[in-house]
Amino acid sequence: MLQNYFEAHPWKIIDRHHQPKHKRFVESIFSLGNEHMGLRGFFEEDYSGDSFQGTYLAGVYYPDPTKVGWWKNGYPEFFAKVINSTNWVGLRVRLDGEALDLASGSIGDYLCELDMQQGLLTRSFTWTSPRGRQARLTFRRFLSMDDVELAVVACDVTPLQQAVQVEFVPYLDGDVKNEDSNYGQTFWDAVDAGRDSQSQFLQSRSRKTGFETLTAMQSQLLLQGVAQPLTHEGSERLHYAEARLSLEVPVGQTATLIKYVSVLTSRDHEPGQLKATALKKVQQAKEQGYERLFLKHRKVWDKKWAEADVVIEGDVTAQQGIRYNIFQLQQTYGGRDARLNIGPKGFTGEKYGGCTYWDTEAFCFPFYLYTNKDVARNLLLYRYQHLEQAKENARKLHLDGALYPMVTIDGRECHNEWEITFEEIHRNGAIAYAIYHYTAYTGDTAYLDQYGIEVLLELSRFWASRVNFSNVKQQYVILGVTGPNEYENNVNNNWYTNMLARWTLAYTLEQLDRLHSQVPARYQTLVQKTGLTPEETAKWADIRARMFLPYDASLAIPMQQEGYLDKDQKLVADLKPGDYPLHKNWSWDRILRSSYIKQADTLQGLYFFPELVDKDEMRRAFDFYEPRTVHESSLSPSIYAVMASMVGYHEKAYELYLRTARLDLDNYNHDTEDGCHITSMVGSWLSIVQGFAGLRFEHDRLSFRPNLPIRWQGFRFQLSYRGRALEVSVHRDRFELLQRSGSALEVEVLGRTYQISEHAPLRVTLH
Amino acid sequence: MLQNYFEAHPWKIIDRHHQPKHKRFVESIFSLGNEHMGLRGFFEEDYSGDSFQGTYLAGVYYPDPTKVGWWKNGYPEFFAKVINSTNWVGLRVRLDGEALDLASGSIGDYLCELDMQQGLLTRSFTWTSPRGRQARLTFRRFLSMDDVELAVVACDVTPLQQAVQVEFVPYLDGDVKNEDSNYGQTFWDAVDAGRDSQSQFLQSRSRKTGFETLTAMQSQLLLQGVAQPLTHEGSERLHYAEARLSLEVPVGQTATLIKYVSVLTSRDHEPGQLKATALKKVQQAKEQGYERLFLKHRKVWDKKWAEADVVIEGDVTAQQGIRYNIFQLQQTYGGRDARLNIGPKGFTGEKYGGCTYWDTEAFCFPFYLYTNKDVARNLLLYRYQHLEQAKENARKLHLDGALYPMVTIDGRECHNEWEITFEEIHRNGAIAYAIYHYTAYTGDTAYLDQYGIEVLLELSRFWASRVNFSNVKQQYVILGVTGPNEYENNVNNNWYTNMLARWTLAYTLEQLDRLHSQVPARYQTLVQKTGLTPEETAKWADIRARMFLPYDASLAIPMQQEGYLDKDQKLVADLKPGDYPLHKNWSWDRILRSSYIKQADTLQGLYFFPELVDKDEMRRAFDFYEPRTVHESSLSPSIYAVMASMVGYHEKAYELYLRTARLDLDNYNHDTEDGCHITSMVGSWLSIVQGFAGLRFEHDRLSFRPNLPIRWQGFRFQLSYRGRALEVSVHRDRFELLQRSGSALEVEVLGRTYQISEHAPLRVTLH
Repeated sequence: MLQNYFEAHPWKIIDRHHQPKHKRFVESIFSLGNEHMGLRGFFEEDYSGDSFQGTYLAGVYYPDPTKVGWWKNGYPEFFAKVINSTNWVGLRVRLDGEALDLASGSIGDYLCELDMQQGLLTRSFTWTSPRGRQARLTFRRFLSMDDVELAVVACDVTPLQQAVQVEFVPYLDGDVKNEDSNYGQTFWDAVDAGRDSQSQFLQSRSRKTGFETLTAMQSQLLLQGVAQPLTHEGSERLHYAEARLSLEVPVGQTATLIKYVSVLTSRDHEPGQLKATALKKVQQAKEQGYERLFLKHRKVWDKKWAEADVVIEGDVTAQQGIRYNIFQLQQTYGGRDARLNIGPKGFTGEKYGGCTYWDTEAFCFPFYLYTNKDVARNLLLYRYQHLEQAKENARKLHLDGALYPMVTIDGRECHNEWEITFEEIHRNGAIAYAIYHYTAYTGDTAYLDQYGIEVLLELSRFWASRVNFSNVKQQYVILGVTGPNEYENNVNNNWYTNMLARWTLAYTLEQLDRLHSQVPARYQTLVQKTGLTPEETAKWADIRARMFLPYDASLAIPMQQEGYLDKDQKLVADLKPGDYPLHKNWSWDRILRSSYIKQADTLQGLYFFPELVDKDEMRRAFDFYEPRTVHESSLSPSIYAVMASMVGYHEKAYELYLRTARLDLDNYNHDTEDGCHITSMVGSWLSIVQGFAGLRFEHDRLSFRPNLPIRWQGFRFQLSYRGRALEVSVHRDRFELLQRSGSALEVEVLGRTYQISEHAPLRVTLH
Repeated sequence: MLQNYFEAHPWKIIDRHHQPKHKRFVESIFSLGNEHMGLRGFFEEDYSGDSFQGTYLAGVYYPDPTKVGWWKNGYPEFFAKVINSTNWVGLRVRLDGEALDLASGSIGDYLCELDMQQGLLTRSFTWTSPRGRQARLTFRRFLSMDDVELAVVACDVTPLQQAVQVEFVPYLDGDVKNEDSNYGQTFWDAVDAGRDSQSQFLQSRSRKTGFETLTAMQSQLLLQGVAQPLTHEGSERLHYAEARLSLEVPVGQTATLIKYVSVLTSRDHEPGQLKATALKKVQQAKEQGYERLFLKHRKVWDKKWAEADVVIEGDVTAQQGIRYNIFQLQQTYGGRDARLNIGPKGFTGEKYGGCTYWDTEAFCFPFYLYTNKDVARNLLLYRYQHLEQAKENARKLHLDGALYPMVTIDGRECHNEWEITFEEIHRNGAIAYAIYHYTAYTGDTAYLDQYGIEVLLELSRFWASRVNFSNVKQQYVILGVTGPNEYENNVNNNWYTNMLARWTLAYTLEQLDRLHSQVPARYQTLVQKTGLTPEETAKWADIRARMFLPYDASLAIPMQQEGYLDKDQKLVADLKPGDYPLHKNWSWDRILRSSYIKQADTLQGLYFFPELVDKDEMRRAFDFYEPRTVHESSLSPSIYAVMASMVGYHEKAYELYLRTARLDLDNYNHDTEDGCHITSMVGSWLSIVQGFAGLRFEHDRLSFRPNLPIRWQGFRFQLSYRGRALEVSVHRDRFELLQRSGSALEVEVLGRTYQISEHAPLRVTLH
């Protein structure tokens, strides 16, 4: 943990000291992205110390051959991973021939600053070279949110003691690897490297997948803000292109190099058009210039912040934390492209291969749904587009319907642990739930009718083939699963899984009925396309009626799985510091037979469906499961925080919120060097919005149960709800709801119903 | 399956056709070994077709880095495997400069013959070279059972149409690899290659483990049986030494090359002595000559066959099958060296790394115990010598006492699947059972008192720390295990495991009591060494008294594990041909949640302890489990065969016996090319001796329930029992027991007690 590594600031992440041993961590934090592409916060100039370079292109992946000790039938042969691609940020600087390298010489007045409001990374310092040249340098970079194929890098150099011959070498480097390659394979073939009168470019093709990427650059050189004639040289070779621009800079004067970059891929362009388009785009970028490009970029950020900012009063580190989290969420996914999804690390690292997990539907979805439903809709579409692969995946397991992959980029399963790949099937449940959630929140059945119902139908088919009828119990059972708590494997009748399976069948039947009566033509085409039979739906209804759900009568709560109470019932309080994290200190069998819970499992189900139990039972469930939960997943604390708020454990809720709020900024899990935790980021948003504000959507309306953390003075956040822009604010003595647009609305606050409208903000006094 | 590939013969395995597509299979079958070393039946001469060369040295291994997709804490970093070592059988032949290669030219009168009675492999054929040279060739090889560091290869060449210049190139090749190397590593460093006046040698050192091996050779050249002057040339280089001997051979005359080889390792000699010893040994071998060496070798085989032959009358393929199995068992392990154990493939292939599994104690042990108890004692000692590593292994899992590895060469765990490595802990039970079995059968507590009791004590400690008390059941439970049926993983309360754990505790307590009263001094040293406390033994007694054993009251049989009856109860009869083998056609989750059983599990427990149930319950258990068992382990059919005999299902017993009897000779499982199945081999012996003869050891005496398979006329086998050599024979109308030596004896046949002695053979009439 690195608490207080960064200086507190409401809008900025500030690092005042270059600390080589923390460089990978800092690089993760200073990652930039714009949904189309992103990169870690590694230096523009050469750096001979340890660094973890990563430049990524969304949706551009490589099927890395599976590494497995003991092969099981049905394992995928490849793990598709988003791959490190052409480094376009590179910019070498030489002072009188000496290469700038912060691992040499000496550094003064170092300041690296991420401006989250503007999406700008700035780094400035005074450097004294080994041979004694001294200069002040400032680097700036942004990835345009306005035109996501553009990025700009700038560098100012001001000699401090004597005139210096400054040489800038902006370059493109396509000879890159992934650190996590299974067998040391490289992923790119060089296609072309060249130039036109103004630009240089590099073209590469990903092996096996054949994605083409073309990166082009142009440069501007200024002295004291005045453009200098471009007498630069340059050269290209395989996988590499560079320009060399130099000039004599008098002491105290500032030379500036601006590097414009366009990054295109064959995902968005015909391969034959890539070069011309990229060259044109970078030319136009240069013509517009840094300031104008930046202004357009900023405007998009302004809009995003207006949609989704959370303001915390009276706690600047909390403010910084939540803004950082929202900033990274917005950089990672903006709903621009329904072929994309949310990688667990965004553009901040290689871990988990940039693939999509159930995290998207189970955790990230509400953030997008509540701030910009169109983005959420694209997340649903992503799964719809992969329905055929999900059906194929189920067929591989000899099951009916669709089983969505645990880990995927292109819809095919990538993971290869049997207890996860084949058994963590609850992931299907979260996908059904997201369809329901979207439909209920927006009040719009259009998506459901056109796309979602087909997904629901195939998910129901899956469950109907995956259950079996137990003669002993005279009920349907689901054997051999791994629930959300991955510290149990191959268990029978995981409550969460069984409950979601039953709910999916029920919801599907309900929506089929509605479709049948309300949109009969669509119902008919659906039946024709899918071959749905009355026998099938009758079977679903039978399973719905007779699904076994483990329950302990003496505790009067749902049981995580059958046999859970046979375990030696130890609590987290019984653990010693050396036990954490369990998966690094205990053998797997010990973890599996322990009562310890990795992350919300039964409570994840109650989080989705609180109406399944009354408040007393909810509290009993929380009291039972929470003390057994080690939260060794970044997904866990936020769900518990929301649930703690729900049962009135406000201190506990705040304590759990803190585990997500600055997880990466404070390197809470000691692994941010691998990249940031997107789900934890969204988790802190959930903790505030669903937890502290107590926002739920039930009975077809928004309801709030606000509770202000004792350390805060107030907080406010934005909601977008059925065409209305709402601002919710909570203070010690009052709850306020401001409606900026749209028609009048009925909401519930602390169990009472209120009307609000654009002209009549709501103010409820709190005690 | 390749039924009838080999010609039927009571003592020989005969292959009359060189079939390239079956070459790997045939090479496995024609493997030779003498416990110290062994090799597959690949050709002496160069062969440009597909071949799987393997030459192995017992106990010489390499720690191959673990290959695993997702690392779990506690996994071993290495998988120790017996490695392919210097090829010493190599002998190139050139006819007028044309290299003999059976992948070219044409072959006539091919005959390859393994003489099991003599331990000799002979191969002869007529070969016409591409350029038209024709000769008759015969190769012979044996690995001395008398001096296990010696082997002899001979080759006769007889030109058929014209005189031929025959060149022999006997060689040693140390540049060998394993096909199953995880990362393509090579395992040997060349140390030396050289010669003295008569011999050439090669010395290698295994990487990481540093085993040194020295192989030396000398050659004799004869024409028409008359020694020829040795004007041979030779050369050595890194990893390689060869001699070149040539002579003009008139048509119809026979040139013979005899290659004497000595193979020594630093396991048995000081490294500095290897060269001198090997050179001397090969020199002496040559001086003795082929015939004398072979005679000594044969004498050892005569003794082995006298101890352990099984004669089947009226079924020559069955006779061939059982003799082949006994032949391979004797080649694999002879109890000469207590540092060695039984690899699942013997010296016939690389699969399973030549490591030791629970197969040794659970399946192979009775064969050695009943034919030569000293061999069995060395198998027990092997585990005693590894007790410290087994304790270390338990500590790694944070458990007390000792957990023997699932897979090992040197006592350390090699396997890396959590559901096996960490959870298939029943292996400890078979090790305890073998100690009991040895002690009961021999009637001698010396091993138990000196060594075994310490092992039992540590095993009991393990179980006491591995159980937990279930508050729900008010009994002790064992959660998260994999039983012998590996088609279930991470189950709770596997009956077999719980039962063996309870029995181990009970037996340990009983033996500690006996030691305490009968050998108090030894008891005291044991307590001092192990720190055994009264609290421990009291805990063991409590677990013994309150261990949960799953039982189904309506079926009135022990249940394989908790929840087994919740499964969809399908039978093997419900499977389709395309389903076999399940592990290649079904995804793992489907296998796990199916009712199908890979191999004897509950029945394995009843095999060990038939007295736990009455005969009706035994039959009910058999009737329930057998139709659910797919026997996808070579360990399975034999146990079921014995149990079928026990419950009186004689036809079924014979049918199951057939699945083991010629499993490799008929390539029943389509995988003999990887090597032979040692446990299946011993399984056919068990099926005959414990099954058809119904031999059991109970109430401190031998008992028999003979039943002759309907297709046989009779069978007989040898037993060694408490200093007596016994011959058991079963015919349709009579059971006979002949005592060759030792004092008088009481035995039980079909429930009646009889006295026999050296002078009074027993004859019981059967109806």
